[in-house]
Amino acid sequence: MPADKPNEKQNVKKVTPRSQDFAGWYNDVILRAELADYSPVRGSMVFRPDGFGIWELLRDELDRRIKKTGARNAYFPLLIPESFLKKEAKHVEGFAPEVAVVTHGGGKLLEEPLIVRPTSETIINHMFAQWIHSHRDLPMMVNQWCNVVRWEMRTRLFLRTLEFLWQEGHTAHATREEAERETLTMLEVYRQFVEDFLAIPLIVGRKSAAERFPGADETYTIEGLMADGRALQCGTSHFLGQNFAKAFEIRFLDESNQLQYTWQTSWGVSTRLLGAIIMVHGDDQGLRLPPAIAPTQVVIVPISRKPEEAEKVLAAARDIGDELERGDVRVKIDTREGLTPGFKFNDWEMRGVPIRIEIGPRDVAAGEVVLARRDRLGPDAKQKVFLAEVPSRVTALLAEIQQSLFDQALANRSANTREFDNYAALITQMEGEGGGGMANVYWCGSPKCETKVREDTKATCRAIPLNQNCAAGKCIVCGEPANERAFFAKAY
Amino acid sequence: MPADKPNEKQNVKKVTPRSQDFAGWYNDVILRAELADYSPVRGSMVFRPDGFGIWELLRDELDRRIKKTGARNAYFPLLIPESFLKKEAKHVEGFAPEVAVVTHGGGKLLEEPLIVRPTSETIINHMFAQWIHSHRDLPMMVNQWCNVVRWEMRTRLFLRTLEFLWQEGHTAHATREEAERETLTMLEVYRQFVEDFLAIPLIVGRKSAAERFPGADETYTIEGLMADGRALQCGTSHFLGQNFAKAFEIRFLDESNQLQYTWQTSWGVSTRLLGAIIMVHGDDQGLRLPPAIAPTQVVIVPISRKPEEAEKVLAAARDIGDELERGDVRVKIDTREGLTPGFKFNDWEMRGVPIRIEIGPRDVAAGEVVLARRDRLGPDAKQKVFLAEVPSRVTALLAEIQQSLFDQALANRSANTREFDNYAALITQMEGEGGGGMANVYWCGSPKCETKVREDTKATCRAIPLNQNCAAGKCIVCGEPANERAFFAKAY
Repeated sequence: MPADKPNEKQNVKKVTPRSQDFAGWYNDVILRAELADYSPVRGSMVFRPDGFGIWELLRDELDRRIKKTGARNAYFPLLIPESFLKKEAKHVEGFAPEVAVVTHGGGKLLEEPLIVRPTSETIINHMFAQWIHSHRDLPMMVNQWCNVVRWEMRTRLFLRTLEFLWQEGHTAHATREEAERETLTMLEVYRQFVEDFLAIPLIVGRKSAAERFPGADETYTIEGLMADGRALQCGTSHFLGQNFAKAFEIRFLDESNQLQYTWQTSWGVSTRLLGAIIMVHGDDQGLRLPPAIAPTQVVIVPISRKPEEAEKVLAAARDIGDELERGDVRVKIDTREGLTPGFKFNDWEMRGVPIRIEIGPRDVAAGEVVLARRDRLGPDAKQKVFLAEVPSRVTALLAEIQQSLFDQALANRSANTREFDNYAALITQMEGEGGGGMANVYWCGSPKCETKVREDTKATCRAIPLNQNCAAGKCIVCGEPANERAFFAKAY
Repeated sequence: MPADKPNEKQNVKKVTPRSQDFAGWYNDVILRAELADYSPVRGSMVFRPDGFGIWELLRDELDRRIKKTGARNAYFPLLIPESFLKKEAKHVEGFAPEVAVVTHGGGKLLEEPLIVRPTSETIINHMFAQWIHSHRDLPMMVNQWCNVVRWEMRTRLFLRTLEFLWQEGHTAHATREEAERETLTMLEVYRQFVEDFLAIPLIVGRKSAAERFPGADETYTIEGLMADGRALQCGTSHFLGQNFAKAFEIRFLDESNQLQYTWQTSWGVSTRLLGAIIMVHGDDQGLRLPPAIAPTQVVIVPISRKPEEAEKVLAAARDIGDELERGDVRVKIDTREGLTPGFKFNDWEMRGVPIRIEIGPRDVAAGEVVLARRDRLGPDAKQKVFLAEVPSRVTALLAEIQQSLFDQALANRSANTREFDNYAALITQMEGEGGGGMANVYWCGSPKCETKVREDTKATCRAIPLNQNCAAGKCIVCGEPANERAFFAKAY
């Protein structure tokens, strides 16, 4: 439970106001909360312990949920023969421009260059072809947590970096129906996980053909709306059809002894989720972490002016800390010396800790403490609580904060989601301040209209909701009949 | 709890007898137990779910133990500027010949080539220099779980591969004493972990100068003896002195406001531990897993000849399975159809599951089952147990098997560890069958004598035990006075 060393210089400064410069605010929060840092290689980043701790909590919970579906973890090689990428036509088209290439190993020029995996469909399907022979080998469901490298030009911490961490699931099935079901099962696993655990409300749907994963027949997505009105893709699940099965010759003998190609899926979420957490929940005081993913859920700040008080206050703080730990609450006591209580309050607010407990000599005497909740501002954020009630109050408050952050994000999304039936109005909205929000419009489905929207507004089709059953309407661009509505937004 | 699909062709075959061809036996066990597979890139490997599941258990437990010492996890970039490697003279000498080099990214030739990390001292110390300013920033203790790439010429599954997985801890301290203490603390964490959890008895000591980590002032090691009489380095902890602090300019203001270089350590264990588990515990029936790291600790095989019996037997098997799961035992029920009980027994023995429960219609009627323990052979391995006693008996037996595997390994090591004071006898022993075992000899400490032993016997200095307090003796090679004994062995 010991707190980290202070670094006064770094944390006294406030961050750039969010309303003034969203991108500047975003970077400030990451650096001041010590979540991450830039690395000497352009576009690469370092995950510092406070940021990586969030990823560990997120990863462990998602890992449990993935395993419950029947997938098991494995690990495939980082370096892939360049020729593998070329086996699936659309896949190579999508990824070849952004790969890092190893040309030398052990001091020698390689006969065939190796690419650093940008994703692992090729190597995993090569192995699937060795392992799958009979319908009894199916379904085959593996997942891996690993690093991938994509040579991105414009990078941003967490959101788009040369290297990132993710999980990628890959499954092979005997029938089309089973593979389609798996694709949607994982989409729903992701939705529940991101909404419940990360407190980020989502729009769920399929992607347009233009936004599909290279090599997929259908891509499904979960999309969040950030506080600046831009959308962020938070996870995708792909129905790959038989494209990779045919490229890698993955065939099995079915129950009537016929040789068949498998049907496949792949699905993944990455460390860009950390960017979503910051951009959905953060405020001008810094980070705000949903309790479920907060490495420190409660920080206790003992306050004393005179040395003779210090011991008593610290003892009381330790008792509270021990009791909360027994209840599986993640607690820290801030015992740093030479810092004012005010500095410490600001510091922990910057780091996004959901609950702060303040305790001074008078509180000890009165048998009470002050609880401050990070999801609210001003006097409304503080409450006095009797010592005996701290554990039950903290547990209830953590759940309340988790819900309250979700509700605030949902309210923001609702306020920034608009239906349009007039193309000029759509353009005006997207040109305005605050990123433009989510636009819900009828779209005929033609790539031509989609391209026009992108060129006129910079907004792209984020998701076409599933099972709409909406009345027929007219495409917002061309006015032709449209059977579906779609969400368009400017995106990260 | 459903069991995997069968693959009869692969598992009916027995493995190469261990005594006949140890290397052939080792590869057979890995492939037949489906722990791993070869990959299309020479020297790379695939961790299959059954092998990766062992690594996950091992990793999670070691991670808990590392965090208890105060280190926190972080993540640093995979790709490192080539110039970084050159900053520490010995480090570049050791690693430059075996790096993989990325020369192209995003379709363009890079201005400076990037190396794929063979280890992360350089990039981490570059970041330490940004983060460490004052004594209040110390100690700085980070750990990362990641993949590393070393261009090895002769590779072997798990033991030496182009890419492997590991954890690497890196710490910076204000004083030499504190850094030395940290080096030994982690050595002891590793020793306890490998002995308690992996059931592998170890020899602990420091390395000779020739075997030191490139850039370290002192390297400490834990060494295991494999069943074929060869040693395997299972983990190392390095005292780096101020070598990297000076190369990367890591300085801090001490309490009297003087600028000082930090003192540093690094320490790591890797997926080669999976190779150690196989080579220490395996037998001619296949893998034998210590219960602590067995993804499946108990397999239940329901046996019935007639369909009308099957349902009753399966119900009883499920009841046992549920009850064991409630007691946190990792259980599988083998419900595969079309396979004989004999085939299933062999299959689970190959996969190393510590306890097998056999239950048939007569057992159900009598209210009992047969427990078979994997650490013993023949009739002695089986016992009848009343149903009500299964949970307590299983729990006790798992602890017993963990200890018994350690004891068997210790007995093998004792039988293959010999003291020598005659150089000719040492040579004869190392030339003989069975790898030669561990030789405990007086050594004067000179590199010349060490080289002679290697040239004459292929054995290298594995470890010089700490705090020996032994009587002075004579070097087994040159006969000059020697103050210490050292362990020599042929090694993987």
